[in-house]
Amino acid sequence: MAYKILRVNMSDLSHKWEDLPAEYETLAGRALTSTIVSKEVDPMCHPLREFNKIVISPGLLAGTSAPSSGRLSVGGKSPLTGGIKEANAGGITAGKLGCLGIRGVIIEGMPPAGTSDWYSIIIQKDKCEIKKTNEYANMGLYDLITKIWQDYPSKPGIIGCGIAGQRLSPNAGVFGNNVENTDPGRYAGRGGLGGVLGSKRVISVITDDTGGEPPQPKDKEKFEEGRKMFTKALTAHPVTGKLKDDDGNPYGGLSNYGTNVLMNILNEAGGLPTKNFRSGRFENAAKISGEAVHELVDKTKEKFGDAAEGRYGHACHPGCVMMCSNVVPYENTGKHQVGPLEYESAWALGTNLTIGDLHDVAELNRICNDVGLDTIEAGGTLGVLMEAGLIAFGDGKGAIAALKEIYNDNSALGRLCASGATNAGKVLGVSRIPSVKGQSLPAYDPRPIRGIGVTYATTPMGADHTAGYTIAAEILGIKGEVTDPRILEKADLSRTFQATTAFIDATGYCLFIAFCVLDDDNGMAGMAQTINAFLGKEIDIGAYGMAILKAELDFNRRAGFTEKDDRLPEFFLKEPLPPHDVTFDVADDEVDKVYKGV
Amino acid sequence: MAYKILRVNMSDLSHKWEDLPAEYETLAGRALTSTIVSKEVDPMCHPLREFNKIVISPGLLAGTSAPSSGRLSVGGKSPLTGGIKEANAGGITAGKLGCLGIRGVIIEGMPPAGTSDWYSIIIQKDKCEIKKTNEYANMGLYDLITKIWQDYPSKPGIIGCGIAGQRLSPNAGVFGNNVENTDPGRYAGRGGLGGVLGSKRVISVITDDTGGEPPQPKDKEKFEEGRKMFTKALTAHPVTGKLKDDDGNPYGGLSNYGTNVLMNILNEAGGLPTKNFRSGRFENAAKISGEAVHELVDKTKEKFGDAAEGRYGHACHPGCVMMCSNVVPYENTGKHQVGPLEYESAWALGTNLTIGDLHDVAELNRICNDVGLDTIEAGGTLGVLMEAGLIAFGDGKGAIAALKEIYNDNSALGRLCASGATNAGKVLGVSRIPSVKGQSLPAYDPRPIRGIGVTYATTPMGADHTAGYTIAAEILGIKGEVTDPRILEKADLSRTFQATTAFIDATGYCLFIAFCVLDDDNGMAGMAQTINAFLGKEIDIGAYGMAILKAELDFNRRAGFTEKDDRLPEFFLKEPLPPHDVTFDVADDEVDKVYKGV
Repeated sequence: MAYKILRVNMSDLSHKWEDLPAEYETLAGRALTSTIVSKEVDPMCHPLREFNKIVISPGLLAGTSAPSSGRLSVGGKSPLTGGIKEANAGGITAGKLGCLGIRGVIIEGMPPAGTSDWYSIIIQKDKCEIKKTNEYANMGLYDLITKIWQDYPSKPGIIGCGIAGQRLSPNAGVFGNNVENTDPGRYAGRGGLGGVLGSKRVISVITDDTGGEPPQPKDKEKFEEGRKMFTKALTAHPVTGKLKDDDGNPYGGLSNYGTNVLMNILNEAGGLPTKNFRSGRFENAAKISGEAVHELVDKTKEKFGDAAEGRYGHACHPGCVMMCSNVVPYENTGKHQVGPLEYESAWALGTNLTIGDLHDVAELNRICNDVGLDTIEAGGTLGVLMEAGLIAFGDGKGAIAALKEIYNDNSALGRLCASGATNAGKVLGVSRIPSVKGQSLPAYDPRPIRGIGVTYATTPMGADHTAGYTIAAEILGIKGEVTDPRILEKADLSRTFQATTAFIDATGYCLFIAFCVLDDDNGMAGMAQTINAFLGKEIDIGAYGMAILKAELDFNRRAGFTEKDDRLPEFFLKEPLPPHDVTFDVADDEVDKVYKGV
Repeated sequence: MAYKILRVNMSDLSHKWEDLPAEYETLAGRALTSTIVSKEVDPMCHPLREFNKIVISPGLLAGTSAPSSGRLSVGGKSPLTGGIKEANAGGITAGKLGCLGIRGVIIEGMPPAGTSDWYSIIIQKDKCEIKKTNEYANMGLYDLITKIWQDYPSKPGIIGCGIAGQRLSPNAGVFGNNVENTDPGRYAGRGGLGGVLGSKRVISVITDDTGGEPPQPKDKEKFEEGRKMFTKALTAHPVTGKLKDDDGNPYGGLSNYGTNVLMNILNEAGGLPTKNFRSGRFENAAKISGEAVHELVDKTKEKFGDAAEGRYGHACHPGCVMMCSNVVPYENTGKHQVGPLEYESAWALGTNLTIGDLHDVAELNRICNDVGLDTIEAGGTLGVLMEAGLIAFGDGKGAIAALKEIYNDNSALGRLCASGATNAGKVLGVSRIPSVKGQSLPAYDPRPIRGIGVTYATTPMGADHTAGYTIAAEILGIKGEVTDPRILEKADLSRTFQATTAFIDATGYCLFIAFCVLDDDNGMAGMAQTINAFLGKEIDIGAYGMAILKAELDFNRRAGFTEKDDRLPEFFLKEPLPPHDVTFDVADDEVDKVYKGV
């Protein structure tokens, strides 16, 4: 199969098909987006002007039968951090691009200043059309997906930007659609790449794979063997499997409770950041946990039967065996309120704001999905608005009202809500802004859990748990052993996780496979075998991951980043976090050790 | 005379008097603030938390009989730029501190989080009181100065922060009062140091010099000789003198037209940034020029006689011979609208916004003065709000209404207006933000006038014309000769101006003396003699200035700044400016040459 790169130039609305260069042969997902961004984008360019680019790439195995391998990477220079960005998501576009033999889509240039038209890029087998679609502008994303699926009855993959991105707001994410419904719930959310799409006047990229076929592994037999070994390990693992005990009670972590199984675990550990990182415990954590959603879904199913729309244990893309996704139903009707409600979102829009009402949290998430915002950053932003006294902590209805201001084009409050925690915090004179490189911290306090703090500080992405999820070792344990979260030597742990993650982000595999592959040698072996068999060569996972990180670090350094940007905000170093009453005590030298010499 | 430093600790509301250390003996003004900030403040600290400090220092000669020597420096880590900041102003506090023998006031620490009290620091002869003054909070500054002068009938010097600073807004300046009226018109405006005062819960620093006496020069005779030579040169120079021609018509530039004499000159030169830096010419420039104010003042004087409050040619501090200050009167009453209306303010709030109505511009300036904002940054901020479509370009009434929102504590629009152009622009997704290091560009477009562009890019202060005013050479000419503003080799020119400026900012002399001392050898000799005679030693002006710059550069580098921060925004490099249709073409290497190896 000859893989292609589709290059779209929005300056003159042209496109061309390029053969995948030989040196990119093994690159896909984050490996491809970061390599191209680092090579083609001037690190000093303004992220919202013509010299930035958006690079979209399906993971290496997207479209194949490998389990849970349908992730899509989106890259560019981030308007939020000013550095390189890769954000990835599930959904259905990656598989379809894979089946069309498209390894990457590069969107470059920008229509002339003053252009008021909006465009969509329609990708079909060996065909690309850049279409004026002003009718898609200024719509909520639930409606937009519904409309596009009416316009294209083949139910194509859709990614794009919402109202926030069309206004170039710094916290605009790139949304993606689901396989089964018109939820805009699949977000390559972090870092504001939705605004980069908006700056190029692109509302959506629509991928229809009719006539395509799955990418073919170089060594089909070995691939199939690896795939089976890996699938078996995934489905047998207590976190990633859909398991029941002898009494028929489900206990598979992700499939039953989703990622939000973490809410009670982190609360118990005292590392759940509460009230803009003032405490490690939230009294109402259980009310907005994965267990609470599970219970609500069961209750509404019982009450409303087939009419009930709540669910847990469903897949965000075809071929996922872990099925962590969910839909939160309204209690009184059983109808769909929002899907999914992830741990990070429930934390950001709930715990972080001390909002303990599940439906208020779900409503905030629904608005984020509809206007096109990253939920973590949106929660961080509302947190600094609360810090500044514009909304009261715990006031769910107030937070909903503020977020709804985004629908009003001229609302300064709406713009602030869509601007990210760092930008909003600076405007408001807030000095408790939990962010690194301009990006909000996610749902693990770095004071009691130092390894994740080192990841937040050093990843080229800005604060990001998915960039090197040491929580797996520090809280959840690997092979039954927990790495003490309190020890101060975390550079090696973080670097190893960051490199492995960069590799996984290239493969198309969902990061959650890590729960299995770190625990189970057969899982790791099966996973590696699928990649090697697909490429027909042996990949060194660590070296592959480090090469991605090197390209990213190089970009950031050329953009002016130094070790001084690898620092947590002052208050983490000075204010002890209850209940453990610890500060972030990792020495700067230890933090800098992560990428010293890289 | 034994000079003192007053150190105020706001954490425990204590103070102590320290002897001026021997190594600081020759340091004052910017030399002292930058040395102390660089030495005592952790460059990585959050500017709005307890580890930042405010350092206040009168210039070396403040309080003496040297002409135009009453400038006051205020320093700290800037919330706007994240780097070191020195902002200076006229007014009456510097002279009074000088007469009390106080070379510096250091305000450090911060009351405990949650403190709702506000304080003022009352300085008298050998006495300091930190007084709870909650009654001064949340007042307009016209009223605040009136009230403080009622409370302290000796009419003390006052500096402090207004509503904007009390809310920690990034564009909050440090205001100062005048000798003759209750205008809050003397601003150490740039860089947001008003917010640092606010973070320390200090509303005002009140200086009463009753019982003090002027600082004594080491060599009185030589000082007196130098003072006379310098005064003579200043008063005879066509820019700095208050001159009349043979027919009795005034022609002294500053005394007749104020700094706003520049409006028509820059318009003529095609370097007057118009409509957020879209053109170098503004069709309504003349209407808001110094000449227009002069004419209005004369007209209202004729009409209202002694009741007329408009004026030009008055001094911002006792002993100034240049007298560039003015008061803009209302046309229909002759009463005071705002004073002064400087060139930079008329440009920022007029030309930059294409507002050509003098009274709208004056009203915007009045609001800035009342709430405590730097006018240049406020104009830049309104410019990006217009860029984003929240206000229409040219809509004076709309801009006034937006700025007035600052009086409303809960207004997101008000907060945006007080946040600075870079912060507001980021929130709004604007990619035409004319700023360097987070600080707005002033009133000279760097495309046709390259030297000032090199100063904007490289000064440790963030974009600032006063940091190295090459305009004197490039537009106004020195000794009758103009340095071509278009040539690309400007590193040496800018560095020389920056070093000389740093020296002048230490002396207490107003920067406008440069018009005379660069032109007239006697002026230079007289000025130098006052300094040398005061200190009793020979000062090398260039070396003295470079030492200040070194301390500032060192601070910024330890805060994470690199050469990548010494860059103009992308659009200056890409978009030609009419009427000359040039871009900023100075090579990065030339820009970096300014401080290479320093």
